[in-house]
Amino acid sequence: MTHKVLIAGQWTVSAGTKTFQAANPATEQLIDGEYPVSPWAEVEQAIEAADAASKAMRGWSGERFARFLESYADTIEARADELVDLANQETALPAPTRLKSVELPRTTNQLRQAAAAARNASWSQPVIDTKTNIRAVFGPIGPVAVFGPNNFPFAFNSIAGGDFAAAVAAGNPVIAKGHSSHPGTTRLLAEAAHEAARETEMPAGFVQLIYRPSHEDGAKLVSHKLMGATGYTGARQAGLVLKSAADSAGKPIYLELSSINPVYFLPGAIEERLDDLASEFATSCLMGTGQFCTNPGLVLLKAGDRTEEFVSAVATRFSEAPVGTMLSEGVRTGFQHGIQAIRNAGAELLTGGESGGGTGVSCQNTLLRVDGTTFLAKPAELQEEAFGNSSLFVVCRDDDQLVEAAESLEGNLTGAIYSNTKGSDDALYARIAPALRQRVGRLMDDKMPTGVAVSPAMNHGGPFPATGHPAFTAVGIPASIVRYGMLHCYDNVRPARLPASLQDKNPGGLWRSIDGEWTQADVAS
Amino acid sequence: MTHKVLIAGQWTVSAGTKTFQAANPATEQLIDGEYPVSPWAEVEQAIEAADAASKAMRGWSGERFARFLESYADTIEARADELVDLANQETALPAPTRLKSVELPRTTNQLRQAAAAARNASWSQPVIDTKTNIRAVFGPIGPVAVFGPNNFPFAFNSIAGGDFAAAVAAGNPVIAKGHSSHPGTTRLLAEAAHEAARETEMPAGFVQLIYRPSHEDGAKLVSHKLMGATGYTGARQAGLVLKSAADSAGKPIYLELSSINPVYFLPGAIEERLDDLASEFATSCLMGTGQFCTNPGLVLLKAGDRTEEFVSAVATRFSEAPVGTMLSEGVRTGFQHGIQAIRNAGAELLTGGESGGGTGVSCQNTLLRVDGTTFLAKPAELQEEAFGNSSLFVVCRDDDQLVEAAESLEGNLTGAIYSNTKGSDDALYARIAPALRQRVGRLMDDKMPTGVAVSPAMNHGGPFPATGHPAFTAVGIPASIVRYGMLHCYDNVRPARLPASLQDKNPGGLWRSIDGEWTQADVAS
Repeated sequence: MTHKVLIAGQWTVSAGTKTFQAANPATEQLIDGEYPVSPWAEVEQAIEAADAASKAMRGWSGERFARFLESYADTIEARADELVDLANQETALPAPTRLKSVELPRTTNQLRQAAAAARNASWSQPVIDTKTNIRAVFGPIGPVAVFGPNNFPFAFNSIAGGDFAAAVAAGNPVIAKGHSSHPGTTRLLAEAAHEAARETEMPAGFVQLIYRPSHEDGAKLVSHKLMGATGYTGARQAGLVLKSAADSAGKPIYLELSSINPVYFLPGAIEERLDDLASEFATSCLMGTGQFCTNPGLVLLKAGDRTEEFVSAVATRFSEAPVGTMLSEGVRTGFQHGIQAIRNAGAELLTGGESGGGTGVSCQNTLLRVDGTTFLAKPAELQEEAFGNSSLFVVCRDDDQLVEAAESLEGNLTGAIYSNTKGSDDALYARIAPALRQRVGRLMDDKMPTGVAVSPAMNHGGPFPATGHPAFTAVGIPASIVRYGMLHCYDNVRPARLPASLQDKNPGGLWRSIDGEWTQADVAS
Repeated sequence: MTHKVLIAGQWTVSAGTKTFQAANPATEQLIDGEYPVSPWAEVEQAIEAADAASKAMRGWSGERFARFLESYADTIEARADELVDLANQETALPAPTRLKSVELPRTTNQLRQAAAAARNASWSQPVIDTKTNIRAVFGPIGPVAVFGPNNFPFAFNSIAGGDFAAAVAAGNPVIAKGHSSHPGTTRLLAEAAHEAARETEMPAGFVQLIYRPSHEDGAKLVSHKLMGATGYTGARQAGLVLKSAADSAGKPIYLELSSINPVYFLPGAIEERLDDLASEFATSCLMGTGQFCTNPGLVLLKAGDRTEEFVSAVATRFSEAPVGTMLSEGVRTGFQHGIQAIRNAGAELLTGGESGGGTGVSCQNTLLRVDGTTFLAKPAELQEEAFGNSSLFVVCRDDDQLVEAAESLEGNLTGAIYSNTKGSDDALYARIAPALRQRVGRLMDDKMPTGVAVSPAMNHGGPFPATGHPAFTAVGIPASIVRYGMLHCYDNVRPARLPASLQDKNPGGLWRSIDGEWTQADVAS
C-alpha cells in the first residue's frame, strides 16, 4: 500500500509513480509501507492551496494560530506511544531515554511556546512613532516550505518542529517535505496536525505534506512566486541547491547546513580537571551517536605533556564507549567519506575509523588528530563535517597558533572555550574569544555545545556555512518566529484600519516601542 | 590630474590605468578632474585594511563610533558650501532648495541619530534569559561594502548616507564605492570622513574610498571571505550581479533595486477632491524630476467619467509643469528605454514622451495609460520601472479588477490608497489593502510616497525586487543598523567576560528584554 499525501486539506492518492520505503537502521530491514515521490504537479497543487490559505488568513489574530498550535500539541501527546514507536523503528534513536522523555516533550513545549508568542504577538515587535504617525510591525510572509533534517524526527520535523511552529506562529501556512528516512513518523504527525487544523477551523491548505520531490522540483518550490519563505535543515550540498534557487527569486531561505562546533581546551583547564573534561567531552561527542548539529567535531589544544594525557584519556573513552546505531545507511556513507577526507588531508587516526561495532548501521567511535600547522595549511579540507561519532583534535604549537586557528575557522553554530577557573588562561582567552566570537552564533565558556535550550536568548544560528544569514536563529521563541515575518509599515493609515497591535489602545499589554521607549501602555492621547 | 583613492588611511595614487570624468547634466559638459577605475589589487588592499580595522575595533564601545559619527557630521557642516556647490554641478539637483536646505541637513541628522543609537546601543536588542543564563545581543558583522545610488549625493552617499551611518553605528569599517556620476562630491565627503576618523583616532582602514571597479571585481568584493556584508542601492541589473555573488558566498547583501510605488485613487476620493489629488500627485511625481526610489510610477483607477476628468487634470498638469534636469545621460537613456518598453506592452502616451524640454539632460514629463485587462495580461512588462518624471495610469473596469491588479503586483517599497473621507470607499479599501499590504514595505492612506521620514517606525524596504529581503529597512534608526549586525549569543560565559550590554548591571539604562519583559533595570540578583 502506498501512503497518501496531504494536499489542500485532503489525504490524497499521490499522482507520483515512483515510491520509496524507509529502513530500520537497527535491523537494516525495510519497514512496511510505501511512500510516493511527489511529482511537480502535486507540489504545485500544494503551493496553490497554501496561497489560498494564506489569503484566507490575512488579518487573522494570533489567537487563531495559538489555538491550532495548542490543539496540535495535545493531539501529539494523545498519540505519543504510536509516534515514539514508529520514530524508534525509523531512526533507531532510543525510545524511552530520547524520543519519549526528551524529544517529544520538547516538541510539544515548542508548539506551546510558539502558541503563547502568537497569542501575545510578542514576536511582532511593534514600533510606533507618534511624531510622524508612522507605525510598523512584523506580519506573515506567506506560504512557508519546510525541509526538516534526519536527526530529530519530532523536534525539527518539517510538520511539527521548530521551523513549523515558527512559521505558523507568524501566521503562515506550511508545506512540509517529509524526510525520506522517517516518512512514517512524519505521516503520523501530519495526521495529528490535520486533525488539529480541522478542529480549530483552519483553511484547507494550511498544513500540507509531500514526499521526496526531486532536487529540481524542490528548487522550483522554494523560488515559486506564491511562496513566502523556506526553512531547511540538512546536508550542505542539497541546501545550497535550494539556497541558490530561492536567492535568485529573492525569496528568504533560512538554512542550517553544517557545523563542526570548535571547542578549545586551554592548558589551565586541562591542568585543573583533565579527567572530568575528557569524560564530559566524550559523553557530549558520542551522545546520539554524534548526530547532532552541535556535535563538537573540532577540538583545539596547545601542545604539551598534559595535553597528550588528555588526548589519550579521550581516545580511551572513545574506544571503550558503546557504539551507537546511526540514523541511516546514508549517514554511515557520509561519515566514512568525511573521515577519509580528513585523513587524506593529513590527520592521523587515534582510534576507530572502521564500519560496524554497534547494532545495525554503525561505525566505530572515531578520534583523529592533526597538528596546527597542517590544519592552517588545509583549513577547508580539515573543516569538513563528518556527521557522526567522531572528532578531530588539532594540537597547536603555541598560543599564536591557537589564535590563528580561530581566525581560520568557517562559520559555525557554536564555539566553546574551557579555561582555568583561577584565571591562569585569562590572557589567552582574551586573544582567542574575540576571533571565535565572529565565527560562531553561540559562544560558550566551560560547556559542551550539544544542549540547545529553547530560550528567548538562544542563537541556534551563525555565519555561513552554518546558516545562510548570521542575524537569525532557528531555535528560541520569539526570535525564531521573526524569520517568517515581513516588516509591515503603516504611514498615515486611518486608526480603525491599523492592525490591533498598532492601535492606540493596548488592552492586551503587548510590549511595544513607542517613541524609543518600550512600554505596555496605550499610546498617550 | 587624477584624483587619489583612500586606502588604509592614506590618500593614494591609484594603481588603475583607466580613468573617468563626471559630467554636469545641466550643461552637458565634462567637469574638470579625472577619477581612477580601481583595479582588483587595490580593492583587495582595501579589504585587507578593512579586515585589520575590524579586528582592531573588536570589543569597542559604541561611544567610539558615536564620537566619529558626530565629528564627521560637524566636518560636513563646516564644508557645506563646497559640498553643495560640487554636488549641484555633478547632479543638477537644486542647490538651495534641495541640496543645502534639505538633503545635507538630513544627512548630518542621520549621522547624529546613528551616533546616538551607537552610544546607547539601542540597535543591539539585548536579550537575557536568567533561568538558563543565556544572553544574546547584536554585534558588528565585519567590513561592509557600500554602493550608493545616483539620486542622493549626500543622504545615500556610499561614504556618508544611511548605509554608511548604519554600518558604522554597528561597529564596522566601510569600503565605499564612489558613484561614478558624483565622484567629486563623494571625494569631498571622504576627505571629511577621513579627517573625522583621524581626529577620533579610528584605525586606518576604517573608512575607505574606491571608484568604479568592474562588475567582476564588485562581485569579488561582496563575496570576499573577509567581508561582513554589503549595502547596495541602484539599478536592478547591476544589483542582481552583486546579489548573486554575495548569496553564493553566504554574505548578507542589502539591496534597494527598483520600485514603482503603486497608488490607488478610489472613486470616492476622486469624487470628493479631484483637483487637489491631481495637484498632489503631479507635484509628487515630478519632484526631483521623478528621480526618487519612492516615485509614484503606477496609478490604479476605476473606469468612470470622474476618473477620465482626473486623468485629464493630471495630464494637463504634467504638460504645463516645468521639465527638470535629469541626473545623467544614463538616466535619460534608461528612462526612454523604460517608456518605450511600457508603450510596446500596449500603453498609450497621454502626454510627453520626447527627449528635451528642460535644461540640459531632460525628457518631457510623461504620462501613460493602459486598461486593466492589458495590465493583467502583461504584468511584468507593464511593471518595468521608468526611472524619472513619468507614471503609468491603469484604468480597471471594476472593483474585482482593481483587486486582481493588487494581487499581480511585484514587490515595492510603498503602496498608497486614497479613499473617501466619509467612508464610501471603505468596502473596496478592505478588499484592496490586504493584497497591497503583502507586496509593499510601507502602506499609506491618503499620502504620496515621496517623503521618507527618518523615523524609528519607517520601513524603506519591501519584498523582492524592491529589496532582497522583506524583513529589513534601509531608512530609520535603529532598525536600519541591525542589518550590519550578527546575533551574538553567550551561553554560560563568565560575567566579567560578557559585553557591557549583557552584564547584570545596566548603568546606562539600556532597554533590554529580560525573561520576556523589556526593562531598563539591572538583572535582579
